[in-house]
Amino acid sequence: MDKMVLKGDIVFTSVKDRLDIFEDSYLIVENGKVVKISKVLEESYKGYPLKDYSKKLIIPGFVDLHLHAPQYPNRGLGLDKELIPWLETYTFPEEEKYDDLEYSRKVFTRLINELWSLGTTRSVVFASVHKESTKLLLELFLESGLGAYVGKVNMDRNTKKELKEDTNKSILDTEEIIKEYKDKSNLVKPIITPRFVPTCSEGLLEALGNLALRYEVPVQSHLNENTSEVVWVKELFPNSKNYASVYDDYNLFGQTKTIMAHCIYNTDDEIELMAENGVYAAHCPYSNYNLSSGIMPVRKFLDMGVPVGLASDISGGNSLSMMSIIAATIQASKMKWLDTNKELAPLTFSEGFYLATKGGGSFFGKVGSFEEGYDFDALIIDDSSLADIKELTIEERLQKFIYIGDDRNIVNRYVEGREIEKPF
Amino acid sequence: MDKMVLKGDIVFTSVKDRLDIFEDSYLIVENGKVVKISKVLEESYKGYPLKDYSKKLIIPGFVDLHLHAPQYPNRGLGLDKELIPWLETYTFPEEEKYDDLEYSRKVFTRLINELWSLGTTRSVVFASVHKESTKLLLELFLESGLGAYVGKVNMDRNTKKELKEDTNKSILDTEEIIKEYKDKSNLVKPIITPRFVPTCSEGLLEALGNLALRYEVPVQSHLNENTSEVVWVKELFPNSKNYASVYDDYNLFGQTKTIMAHCIYNTDDEIELMAENGVYAAHCPYSNYNLSSGIMPVRKFLDMGVPVGLASDISGGNSLSMMSIIAATIQASKMKWLDTNKELAPLTFSEGFYLATKGGGSFFGKVGSFEEGYDFDALIIDDSSLADIKELTIEERLQKFIYIGDDRNIVNRYVEGREIEKPF
Repeated sequence: MDKMVLKGDIVFTSVKDRLDIFEDSYLIVENGKVVKISKVLEESYKGYPLKDYSKKLIIPGFVDLHLHAPQYPNRGLGLDKELIPWLETYTFPEEEKYDDLEYSRKVFTRLINELWSLGTTRSVVFASVHKESTKLLLELFLESGLGAYVGKVNMDRNTKKELKEDTNKSILDTEEIIKEYKDKSNLVKPIITPRFVPTCSEGLLEALGNLALRYEVPVQSHLNENTSEVVWVKELFPNSKNYASVYDDYNLFGQTKTIMAHCIYNTDDEIELMAENGVYAAHCPYSNYNLSSGIMPVRKFLDMGVPVGLASDISGGNSLSMMSIIAATIQASKMKWLDTNKELAPLTFSEGFYLATKGGGSFFGKVGSFEEGYDFDALIIDDSSLADIKELTIEERLQKFIYIGDDRNIVNRYVEGREIEKPF
Repeated sequence: MDKMVLKGDIVFTSVKDRLDIFEDSYLIVENGKVVKISKVLEESYKGYPLKDYSKKLIIPGFVDLHLHAPQYPNRGLGLDKELIPWLETYTFPEEEKYDDLEYSRKVFTRLINELWSLGTTRSVVFASVHKESTKLLLELFLESGLGAYVGKVNMDRNTKKELKEDTNKSILDTEEIIKEYKDKSNLVKPIITPRFVPTCSEGLLEALGNLALRYEVPVQSHLNENTSEVVWVKELFPNSKNYASVYDDYNLFGQTKTIMAHCIYNTDDEIELMAENGVYAAHCPYSNYNLSSGIMPVRKFLDMGVPVGLASDISGGNSLSMMSIIAATIQASKMKWLDTNKELAPLTFSEGFYLATKGGGSFFGKVGSFEEGYDFDALIIDDSSLADIKELTIEERLQKFIYIGDDRNIVNRYVEGREIEKPF
């Protein structure tokens, strides 16, 4: 049995409304899972190998619920544009390149290194339409030791001809990846990935829903990001009740576990449907700023019982840092509070932290917390450079790390109890 | 005569609407000032010492128009609160500590190191009410080689008793600092700093306006940050036309050059008065998010002819990085565009960059650009870590540095032609 004890200042959020704080305590891990946390090391654990991280913070690894791997080279570029022209000018031309496996490898190894560096231990990823490149990305994640869902993108209409797939080939390629990777690893798995409604024919949506059900594979897509997009979907599916119900009609909306990115312009009906079906919302504050999309009313989703996580959405989002994204989430929620005449209360610090750990982590199972039985995904934070002026409480130290820290403060990373070194 | 030539990829904004780009060119500096930029090195400059920064970006140093030095230890702390309770719980208790010169030195040296590290070559700074601590901050800036205006804060009412000044002492202390530092250096100067209207009696405001006129010293304060604050000012000065005119009535609103931080809730009359009097607005996007203040309509101020610069406003703002603040400024302007039914156009990348360089720099004189006669304040950017995947244009390289770069990409810093080493 693999076992260890870690010692340090332990912080996590079992519920969103407060931090669970264990100062100078011991965390017991067996077979990659959290057994317990205690102030005094019990006799029975004294033989376990001890990792002494005294004076350092031990926190759950971060979870990024939505990002586009092939857009990694575009981070920070072209952000004077809105969604649709930005897709056409920057995104699609970049995504074409991924029929080239050498280029794919160059980009994906750098991406995975940066996820590692920033403490993102689990992520949910869009690849491109290319089958081989998608498989390479799955293999590279497997090699890295980080957790990921990776999806080959499906698009058979309304995109550049270089990226437009033959419907049948799109379905067959997707099925091939599912069969090959579905049971290969606990940590790295395929996910069905219709890009979004406008780029998928009804036939493709129907086939993808069938694949999801047949192989019990999860689903990810985009929903209600931009007002023009919402109008476009209405034109394409005039008989559907709303945007969400297009996915729902094709078994792509919680029939297997599902993530929808953005959710800025959801109607109340759509939010209710997400709550009923247990569909996750991936909140992408930087992307929603950069592409002038708007601010998702996260509080409303939480109040209505929708599971929510945070996401970078590179390269609509410019930053992969979940620390910055937590801060941006809290900040955006404050603007939403003002916009709604102070109806939707701002998110608190503990809520922001929760969303980036247990909130998104629950999509992976028992991930993102240090409660008993949770996968031990963790970061060791040396915040001595941030807290060298005056005495701070553990909560204040965590606040400082989130608001002004960076990858230099993250000194060790664990996934399922295994320490992960720089992958590439 | 001090002279040198720098070679590299030179970018700046002489006007806000476009980047001036000189690829692989030469920039001639004499006596700390820009002489010219040329593609080919002219014969007459071939004897000048050459700094070869080929493949690197050469950009103007950043200007931070508003920050609170004594709040440096509080960055990232307590941001679940709004302005007034945050001041009372976090800010004022921290500011009390600055009667201790040892503590002051510990904080200020770290602050100045971080400004240096992030390429902020000029800043406009609030100290605390303490005379000796303010002088120490002036001395430390002088020692560092960075440019700064530093103001002793004035408060004689509506604050904790530990920070409340005797009106006369407040005036005398301010005058003493002005006399001692007004002509001591070109780079580091005093600035008159009533904290904001609610903490200053009429007698104090009147005396400070007189000092400004008598010694021709600039002024800084806060304006229209928060709706409760605006109501409070109206209660305190029921006969004044508006918040801005309280300052104006006391010669603290452009009678000598003046910066007002925030300006979120200005009326059109107040914006017009700023334009007429040449009063600068310091836009502090992070602070305005964090304290749930709102978003300043920067576009409107620019359209109405108000000079605008950017600012960190630590510790209302969490970050001192002007790169992040440029990105946040552009992002916030996109939300304002949506809020105003697409009336106030979003700020472009070049506008964001302009505001953080020449926009704020003009408060210091010919600062923030590489036009002829400008002070050579510059940063050398090694962006090779950001641009190693595909070929990028110089504009795209600058975008990447601003949106995803950090202090590790800044490899040299110049102020008035002198290279500045890490100060402390």
